[in-house]
Amino acid sequence: MNDGGRGLFITFEGTEGVGKSTAIRLVSEYLTNRGIDHRVTREPGGTPLAEEIRALLLASREEAVDPTTELLLMFAARAQHLARLIRPSLDGGQWVLCDRFTDATYAYQGGGRNLDAELVATLEQLVQGDLRPDRIFWLDAPVAKGMERISDRAGGKDRFETERERFFERVRAVYRERAQTLPEAYRRIDAAQPLEVVEQALYRETASLIDRW
Amino acid sequence: MNDGGRGLFITFEGTEGVGKSTAIRLVSEYLTNRGIDHRVTREPGGTPLAEEIRALLLASREEAVDPTTELLLMFAARAQHLARLIRPSLDGGQWVLCDRFTDATYAYQGGGRNLDAELVATLEQLVQGDLRPDRIFWLDAPVAKGMERISDRAGGKDRFETERERFFERVRAVYRERAQTLPEAYRRIDAAQPLEVVEQALYRETASLIDRW
Repeated sequence: MNDGGRGLFITFEGTEGVGKSTAIRLVSEYLTNRGIDHRVTREPGGTPLAEEIRALLLASREEAVDPTTELLLMFAARAQHLARLIRPSLDGGQWVLCDRFTDATYAYQGGGRNLDAELVATLEQLVQGDLRPDRIFWLDAPVAKGMERISDRAGGKDRFETERERFFERVRAVYRERAQTLPEAYRRIDAAQPLEVVEQALYRETASLIDRW
Repeated sequence: MNDGGRGLFITFEGTEGVGKSTAIRLVSEYLTNRGIDHRVTREPGGTPLAEEIRALLLASREEAVDPTTELLLMFAARAQHLARLIRPSLDGGQWVLCDRFTDATYAYQGGGRNLDAELVATLEQLVQGDLRPDRIFWLDAPVAKGMERISDRAGGKDRFETERERFFERVRAVYRERAQTLPEAYRRIDAAQPLEVVEQALYRETASLIDRW
């Protein structure tokens, strides 16, 4: 995959409630046990300014947010995250584990909000150049199952979490489509399985990444 | 220019301290006296969300802001401003007077911060489609003169105002170049003249816009 000098860029994708946070924690612990230096981060966010942009995106507001505005804010946060954290970490040999990345933009803004995928692709190229994740772990489960887990969670729901089930069906459909288009990068993890099974799948995939590194 | 149904979109451009605010006030008063319904607004800003993005852009921060991040934030604010204020006002027959618009992005991010003008043009087309200002009043004066006026102002300077004189020379050069490329839309107002002369020039140009409307 590379000569071992540059770190690997691994992203975690999926609809709400599929267990992305748990998956990231498991992979991070596995890497730590194998002595592999890495950063854990998230999108939108990952730097102080990018987290401020995240707060703008997630805030409940009376003003309707134009879909193009939302898309540009997402990529503004991403440009900052890439410049200040992701690229320097990878260049310095660290792996980066990121909770959501551009695949989520295709899925949520493209699939969920019906924005033109061409528009997303234009901004992806403009902001990322040739940088793409080395591995995308797609945690996939039926939408109804994820919705159950969200409603069990303590605390209020943010603007995205209050969207309806059909929205998440469209989001899931884009992930499915992208997994078919990008089979080299994507690994579908069946998140409806018992945790021990999900855990073993993640360890196996991570071990194979380390071997090829 | 149109059949009188749609309002005209007029922007005011120039480096710091050339008197844009005064010019906008004068044109607004003139339109009011002629019974022409209009909105006065500014960029970045003009809606609550766009003003929040403005605050992110102008804040002093330790984190270096990536030039692409800055550019995307500018256009995110612009997309919101267009969707929520500028387009609905123009479509409703109101004129819009806007303190800075995309020409400022070419001048400040392109000229000032050396970002590729092609990148600005791509985002301009993506966010605005075919919408361009009907008239651009470029208030032009030697940079040193503007700097003097800024240092006389009360209150602290924001991030952009603390940039150096050479930065403003590059900004001014882009305005000059764009005025030559877009002679139909641009009107250079010599802002180094006495206020009464500037005032008369603005009234004359505004009267001519009303006649053609």
